[in-house]
Amino acid sequence: MHIKDKVKEEAVQINEIPWKEFPTALSAGGIRWKFLHASPEMGAWTAIFDCPAGSSFNAHFHVGPGEYYLTKGRMDIRGGKAHGGETVSAPAYGYESANARHDKTAFPVDSEFYMTFLGPLSFIKEDGTPIVVVSWDEAQRAYLS
Amino acid sequence: MHIKDKVKEEAVQINEIPWKEFPTALSAGGIRWKFLHASPEMGAWTAIFDCPAGSSFNAHFHVGPGEYYLTKGRMDIRGGKAHGGETVSAPAYGYESANARHDKTAFPVDSEFYMTFLGPLSFIKEDGTPIVVVSWDEAQRAYLS
Amino acid sequence: MHIKDKVKEEAVQINEIPWKEFPTALSAGGIRWKFLHASPEMGAWTAIFDCPAGSSFNAHFHVGPGEYYLTKGRMDIRGGKAHGGETVSAPAYGYESANARHDKTAFPVDSEFYMTFLGPLSFIKEDGTPIVVVSWDEAQRAYLS
Amino acid sequence: MHIKDKVKEEAVQINEIPWKEFPTALSAGGIRWKFLHASPEMGAWTAIFDCPAGSSFNAHFHVGPGEYYLTKGRMDIRGGKAHGGETVSAPAYGYESANARHDKTAFPVDSEFYMTFLGPLSFIKEDGTPIVVVSWDEAQRAYLS
Repeated sequence: MHIKDKVKEEAVQINEIPWKEFPTALSAGGIRWKFLHASPEMGAWTAIFDCPAGSSFNAHFHVGPGEYYLTKGRMDIRGGKAHGGETVSAPAYGYESANARHDKTAFPVDSEFYMTFLGPLSFIKEDGTPIVVVSWDEAQRAYLS
Repeated sequence: MHIKDKVKEEAVQINEIPWKEFPTALSAGGIRWKFLHASPEMGAWTAIFDCPAGSSFNAHFHVGPGEYYLTKGRMDIRGGKAHGGETVSAPAYGYESANARHDKTAFPVDSEFYMTFLGPLSFIKEDGTPIVVVSWDEAQRAYLS
Repeated sequence: MHIKDKVKEEAVQINEIPWKEFPTALSAGGIRWKFLHASPEMGAWTAIFDCPAGSSFNAHFHVGPGEYYLTKGRMDIRGGKAHGGETVSAPAYGYESANARHDKTAFPVDSEFYMTFLGPLSFIKEDGTPIVVVSWDEAQRAYLS
Repeated sequence: MHIKDKVKEEAVQINEIPWKEFPTALSAGGIRWKFLHASPEMGAWTAIFDCPAGSSFNAHFHVGPGEYYLTKGRMDIRGGKAHGGETVSAPAYGYESANARHDKTAFPVDSEFYMTFLGPLSFIKEDGTPIVVVSWDEAQRAYLS
């Protein structure tokens, strides 16, 4: 065994990294994102999302908890208030718990949010079976390579 | 918003809870287990496993990190030393990192180990596609219900 | 043992909760904050800070990792670039690692940032000895009571 | 930004590393320990403790959650059952939550336990003020150097 060092600090000037298209297999309507950070030991990751009016994420499970900070626009979560979920307008904060199922997250107006994730997003079919599991590692590779 | 309480402590006399068969779809050779704890907020869980000589777990990914304490017997991890993995004999400790893939974990002699998991185990086919994702919630339901 | 439920989701309209003065024993120059969330099981918490030009936080350790999203202004961390630390301008993201020591975090212009913390902040004297440890529980009580 | 690697697996043959005296400023009666693992990113750590009959740990707070597996003997936690706490006999499992205060943990007979910690132990005076904060980093340095 040997002494381990503490993990390095990081700082990112967000305007200096590019917006990239979020995979269209997992979203609709032109969502773009910037991947900001991976924590390989915990399996955590952080990103910012730019969501045009009418865009949405496909159905997914949060395998671990996630927290979002909506800085612009409006977000319909778990169907929105009209369907038993939440509708929030910027500025808003939200906590999505481990094992939360999100059947479509939709953006009725141009929106932007920042989110920290512990563990992967598991995108699912209507019957709940997994299509693809997006961990910190898939996320960083999708953005950086 | 309201003040949240701290989480309750727990204590389990391990001999007072039953051994149950670990799902035979995910293992071979008669593995039994006791589920000890779930942490629903983090998505963590803890269990103890009784593994007869010749038993094994099917191929799986550790979605988050896991730590084991082998108190009896011998364990071949990631194929065992003969195949580039690890072989440990009790008493042994191991750290399995987030995204670690384990193609068969085997027990050549009667063995027992305790393990803490952050996040689910994803049991997989040979090509890496998921068969079933065992989270803290599936684990507690499999054992308790 | 009994089946545990998953944790409840939360959503906060940030304009509907009040700015409060951040303790002047731990900061200078009129910093205000909104406490957004506590995760009692992990010991994590989330808040947003409004930092007027010339304000600063006193010296502290991050006991666990923290991530900030600076949405307005400028922040000098660990002394700022001039002293071997970081200086970031909005929009900026940063990761502060477990055991990171911050000798004064200062805001040369009006600034605002959102931050998620795993574990407490330990405010310290110059020799590193603790003055007070601000956990999720002290934080929620300071804001909500 | 660059692609980050997953964290390395670890395996420790526990008999191949030495028992060391646990600091007598924090315990009484000859407690020895083996430090098994540090997770610098999360601020977590893992150790095994050998506690002779009559030994005890001084009063402390668990800053984050901890889980123990008592493999030998008996442990009086938070004063033991006689004083509103817990008394467990091997084999036993326990979950100690974030912010749990332990005023003396005592071992009436020769005992041994394995424990995983998220975050530090904060050893305290009777009035609750911290004497010393034992994080993953202090723990590894105390054992390895």
